[in-house]
Amino acid sequence: MTKGPTSRFKVEVLDGDRTSRREDLVTTEEPLELRLEWPGRPPEPLVVTMRTPGADFELAAGFCLGEGFAVRPDAIRTVAYCTDVALTREQQFNTVTVSLDAPPDREPPQRYGVTSAACGVCGQQSLDELADRDYAPVDPVEITVDVVRRLPDLLRDAQPMFSRTGSLHAAGLFSTGGGKIVVKEDVGRHNAVDKVVGWTVLNQHRRTGLVLAVSGRIGYEIVQKAVAAGLGMIVAVGAPSSLAVDLARQYGVTLVGFARGDRCVVYSAPERVIRPA
Amino acid sequence: MTKGPTSRFKVEVLDGDRTSRREDLVTTEEPLELRLEWPGRPPEPLVVTMRTPGADFELAAGFCLGEGFAVRPDAIRTVAYCTDVALTREQQFNTVTVSLDAPPDREPPQRYGVTSAACGVCGQQSLDELADRDYAPVDPVEITVDVVRRLPDLLRDAQPMFSRTGSLHAAGLFSTGGGKIVVKEDVGRHNAVDKVVGWTVLNQHRRTGLVLAVSGRIGYEIVQKAVAAGLGMIVAVGAPSSLAVDLARQYGVTLVGFARGDRCVVYSAPERVIRPA
Repeated sequence: MTKGPTSRFKVEVLDGDRTSRREDLVTTEEPLELRLEWPGRPPEPLVVTMRTPGADFELAAGFCLGEGFAVRPDAIRTVAYCTDVALTREQQFNTVTVSLDAPPDREPPQRYGVTSAACGVCGQQSLDELADRDYAPVDPVEITVDVVRRLPDLLRDAQPMFSRTGSLHAAGLFSTGGGKIVVKEDVGRHNAVDKVVGWTVLNQHRRTGLVLAVSGRIGYEIVQKAVAAGLGMIVAVGAPSSLAVDLARQYGVTLVGFARGDRCVVYSAPERVIRPA
Repeated sequence: MTKGPTSRFKVEVLDGDRTSRREDLVTTEEPLELRLEWPGRPPEPLVVTMRTPGADFELAAGFCLGEGFAVRPDAIRTVAYCTDVALTREQQFNTVTVSLDAPPDREPPQRYGVTSAACGVCGQQSLDELADRDYAPVDPVEITVDVVRRLPDLLRDAQPMFSRTGSLHAAGLFSTGGGKIVVKEDVGRHNAVDKVVGWTVLNQHRRTGLVLAVSGRIGYEIVQKAVAAGLGMIVAVGAPSSLAVDLARQYGVTLVGFARGDRCVVYSAPERVIRPA
């Protein structure tokens, strides 16, 4: 069965001095592989997109219109979930085949080499490869809840461009005491993370004892980039996706979301958010 | 020269009954092509990402670490803007080559077929192809400023999942009178647009006389999808990027941003936002 549009996770909510444990609804994020076929050509993978399950056929049809593969109103003959027996049942509902009635006016590109400002998982060929990477253990850094609460303001204060345009994502690396190491802005949240991680690479700066703070939501690709960099602590102003929580739990990354004012929600490894005795 | 992190555009600000014309700062969005080389292999394109210019070398280094191409601290020998004489001067500053000291542990994939929840421009091979698409004229639909102001609430009211998770993008198609045609949610804003456009495809619904409303920011890919679908009016709660404004102006799409309460900013084709006489 395909997953629903929301997923349930047990979380810790820190609100003032209180900690409560409860179930939280998180937006489901799952990969969807689109395949394209037409008379004389078998289905071939077109793209894999991370999406919230639901309206998958509409997503497939809209993507094909947007990319110029199905422009005529009746260009699409059918849209269907895959029945490839080599796929698991869950993968079948994450694979959609669009059948055109004729070859498309625009030939699908050989390589999918352009990612948008908000794209960060590029580099995998298929659903299988998404799960196929191994990473070294992340830094088991601890942080006090007091610093967690200060981080959103510290990040915002270091965003010179946001105040002028109202439209930039930011990512920053901070010490566990809240000291700013580096903050970068970008239209793409994953780019902002790449920029601060890349800063540590080019400056040969340690990536231990650090907290990754981000201004927006947390998708799979943000956690993947943190894990690849060995960072063990993410504090976000926005909400995480289900795959982000899954990946953070798999690698023991502490994932804090909705960090606003005195309140925040801890989705994974909460023992490393230190509360007053 | 490369462009700065912000760009200036002449806009119309509608605030209550007043219209004022002024210059607005917009976050710059530009494509960056990353190329990878190592001893014995010439530079080859790795990926094109939409980004805000600035810290381009950090972005390149962080991307290579995240994708597993440059994991050792000294794996990167140099990072440099391209000097390929076949490129224009602007393209040279939108092309960065990472030189590794040895072949990477992980071979770069042949195809870049995975896009994240927030990615929507995939399908182009290089910088050249981004500008290489032609579209039919969009629908010259008009809308009253009164409906513009009601759209954000109408969109939010049609978002069943947002209120439960606090983390979903929405896109909707509305009539010029504010009647809801279809609204879809997704972790990815471009997916939400694909879903509503795809709904018109699968239901053979006209795409004239419609307004595309979106809950978040407007990047290049949202405008591109609207143009490909022939939609001539976009109303967004968030801010647009520079490329989004450029593309909207090129195709005569009315682009309204920051639609909040009694105020909004019109970035292109303002004559189609009808004000009280």
